[in-house]
Amino acid sequence: MNLQSSEDGRLRHLLTLEGLPRAALVALLDRAQAFLDGHGAADPRMALAGTAVCTLFFEPSTRTRLSFQRAAQRLGADVLGFDASTSSTSKGETALDTLRNIEAMGVRGFVVRHREDGAAAMLAACAAHDTAVVNAGDGRSAHPTQGLLDVLTLRQAKGADFSRLKVAIVGDIRHSRVARSELHALRTLGIGEVRACGPTGLLPDDATLDGCIVGSDLDAALDGVDAVFMLRLQRERMVEGLVSSLEDYHRDYGLTAVRLRRAAPDAVVLHPGPMNRGVEISDEVADGPQSLVLRQVANGVVVRMAVLETLLA
Amino acid sequence: MNLQSSEDGRLRHLLTLEGLPRAALVALLDRAQAFLDGHGAADPRMALAGTAVCTLFFEPSTRTRLSFQRAAQRLGADVLGFDASTSSTSKGETALDTLRNIEAMGVRGFVVRHREDGAAAMLAACAAHDTAVVNAGDGRSAHPTQGLLDVLTLRQAKGADFSRLKVAIVGDIRHSRVARSELHALRTLGIGEVRACGPTGLLPDDATLDGCIVGSDLDAALDGVDAVFMLRLQRERMVEGLVSSLEDYHRDYGLTAVRLRRAAPDAVVLHPGPMNRGVEISDEVADGPQSLVLRQVANGVVVRMAVLETLLA
Amino acid sequence: MNLQSSEDGRLRHLLTLEGLPRAALVALLDRAQAFLDGHGAADPRMALAGTAVCTLFFEPSTRTRLSFQRAAQRLGADVLGFDASTSSTSKGETALDTLRNIEAMGVRGFVVRHREDGAAAMLAACAAHDTAVVNAGDGRSAHPTQGLLDVLTLRQAKGADFSRLKVAIVGDIRHSRVARSELHALRTLGIGEVRACGPTGLLPDDATLDGCIVGSDLDAALDGVDAVFMLRLQRERMVEGLVSSLEDYHRDYGLTAVRLRRAAPDAVVLHPGPMNRGVEISDEVADGPQSLVLRQVANGVVVRMAVLETLLA
Repeated sequence: MNLQSSEDGRLRHLLTLEGLPRAALVALLDRAQAFLDGHGAADPRMALAGTAVCTLFFEPSTRTRLSFQRAAQRLGADVLGFDASTSSTSKGETALDTLRNIEAMGVRGFVVRHREDGAAAMLAACAAHDTAVVNAGDGRSAHPTQGLLDVLTLRQAKGADFSRLKVAIVGDIRHSRVARSELHALRTLGIGEVRACGPTGLLPDDATLDGCIVGSDLDAALDGVDAVFMLRLQRERMVEGLVSSLEDYHRDYGLTAVRLRRAAPDAVVLHPGPMNRGVEISDEVADGPQSLVLRQVANGVVVRMAVLETLLA
Repeated sequence: MNLQSSEDGRLRHLLTLEGLPRAALVALLDRAQAFLDGHGAADPRMALAGTAVCTLFFEPSTRTRLSFQRAAQRLGADVLGFDASTSSTSKGETALDTLRNIEAMGVRGFVVRHREDGAAAMLAACAAHDTAVVNAGDGRSAHPTQGLLDVLTLRQAKGADFSRLKVAIVGDIRHSRVARSELHALRTLGIGEVRACGPTGLLPDDATLDGCIVGSDLDAALDGVDAVFMLRLQRERMVEGLVSSLEDYHRDYGLTAVRLRRAAPDAVVLHPGPMNRGVEISDEVADGPQSLVLRQVANGVVVRMAVLETLLA
Repeated sequence: MNLQSSEDGRLRHLLTLEGLPRAALVALLDRAQAFLDGHGAADPRMALAGTAVCTLFFEPSTRTRLSFQRAAQRLGADVLGFDASTSSTSKGETALDTLRNIEAMGVRGFVVRHREDGAAAMLAACAAHDTAVVNAGDGRSAHPTQGLLDVLTLRQAKGADFSRLKVAIVGDIRHSRVARSELHALRTLGIGEVRACGPTGLLPDDATLDGCIVGSDLDAALDGVDAVFMLRLQRERMVEGLVSSLEDYHRDYGLTAVRLRRAAPDAVVLHPGPMNRGVEISDEVADGPQSLVLRQVANGVVVRMAVLETLLA
């Protein structure tokens, strides 16, 4: 999707990791790592001083919003928050009119979350030429900063050569924008093997998993893997009849310490949060030595700093 | 209303444009224009550094709140947000106790929106001597920064001599604080001719339109005008029986491209937003070359910077 | 409770005033007074520059949240707001996971309000070693910054020798975290005499009032006291049958000007707000010359500055 890059290859928006050139992806990871290591800039506060960034959330998300807010603060940006639940969209304004209005206020960066696939791309397509849109999750399509922080976390744990690695993605892949962005990033970085595992009803029936080893047997999927990417189970899936009960789901697809022993001894566990403890992940694993869940959160801030700086500085 | 000026003529609050001396009004417009042109100050960030401004909204409004927040940020002020829906007013505290409390926290500027006429003036009357209140809309009475930004937009398009201009104000004038503030500002600046147009039930029955040419025929009202100030139709008006249907309203009072041709060829169109597309304004006009809607939004930020700086610096 | 102090006596969290050494308590009051007097620091904005503070409110409170936000702003901190009503806790995340996540984003200070007793302490016990938790009210247990600001207000009015003072605490002591923190602070500062007064059903049946003169006759409790600490009556108490009606409550326990004459002539009146005017306090007293209610609010900001600086700088 060329919408997110200008003709000279500069990143204008971050809408998806699909098709993002490897060099651009690695540059974002390297920049994030530099911020983490404290040599991101002489004074990161000056990077976006005077620039305004708006979190434009049509679907609630405390954690992602706070992470972007913190990233913007650390770069010295002014942050404006727009929450659709108390907004004039309830007065019938379209998302596009909302963006154009806030843009006219002099805001240059938009962090957009929306329940519809393609919403962030639609807004980016209609935005002014110096406006940057970051997709903070649209429908089931993409959540690119989550994908970036996940592979940054994996790189920190396992090194930069992903071709030697086997990973498992487990859970509700069908409805997961996180899984899709993880898959895009892993492929671009030349991952050795991806196993996709979940109940049949929660596996996608499109090309999402092309090239993956797909199955519904968690034990088999975990066998010898270097990393497990767990997904959050939306409780709505039960209402929809895709999952019979939380207990059944935990029995078949919950990651427990016993199960995790099937993976490589130094395997790591990731989860995008918020975790349903006792459903897709047990307390023991969530808080155990192989869990990188909090490392992911820390990486999320620096990844978002790298993205905002790249797009806006 | 002398509440908003001190004895030596200094502006202490901005509650209404009614009675605001022409020199004071023009000074605010000039200051706003200077901010827009980038020569507002050597470093606008220092203008209100260390000063705290609170957006005190008893009625929700995302856009006006964000515009004031951005204005305050650009002046370097600290912004505190008070949203009555999650506030202690639900515990029975009065608006005045709320203001006095936040004032006691060292906050000097209050941007107040309230559904009752006169609410901002009441708070200003009871506030401490160094507190400044900006009315961000009270009942049907006034929305002075909207009036200012509208005449600033008109001045940019048509020049400073308003005596040569004919303008139309169209829609639900009866319930509109925007229309009232526009009328105040236009009169003060010596507008040549104002035509007020809307269905009979939405025209005011008081002195609001004194001196205007009042009617219910939109085609006649548009004939040869230099600018059209459209108003938002509140959907509640149908429930109240003041409007029969959105379709009827659009047919009789919706500004379409065809209709706009009755105005002067270089006529401009303003709307305070959010727009009901297909009701009071067609997409073609809203997004067309004569629309200044986004210019109004941009002017809103600098007008509010001018107001906050004038009151607080 | 040693959780809040490190082995070398440094304050790590502020969870309760119970057991806080007198020297530590007085140091906080002195520091707050210095901020109030304008000689808190050469540039208070630098004290917490680059440090992030999160208001983590699981129970709504506009005023306390704004007061902490203002305190953090004045120290130059970045503020992040977490409001449980729109948060992922609704997705089943625990308060502890929420804290750990925001902590992983690089946030070092947490201002926590929660309806459960001990919630802030639980979070402090599980937090990272360089994280500081300030209890902004937990259940009925404690609201230490309110206690601090109340004794600071009393000290300003009556001097530092509390042993000569007689005070009354009036109202719903049983359910009040404010009363408990006031009692802790007053005892630590060697208060001469505390009278606790309220209807029997609203008096605690535990050790809360040890050492106090307890009774249900307001006139007797007020007789000759130097200060009256009024408490807010939660309207829920009527539903629970603990109070028969607001009228009865006002007749028996409302502080009116007539009643206040029983206190010492220069007695002062405090109330944590928001006030139920006409219930526990009359307008005449609330706005009268003996009321220190707004002084308390002003002191709240500097007390919170002192606490945040002590814990985080």
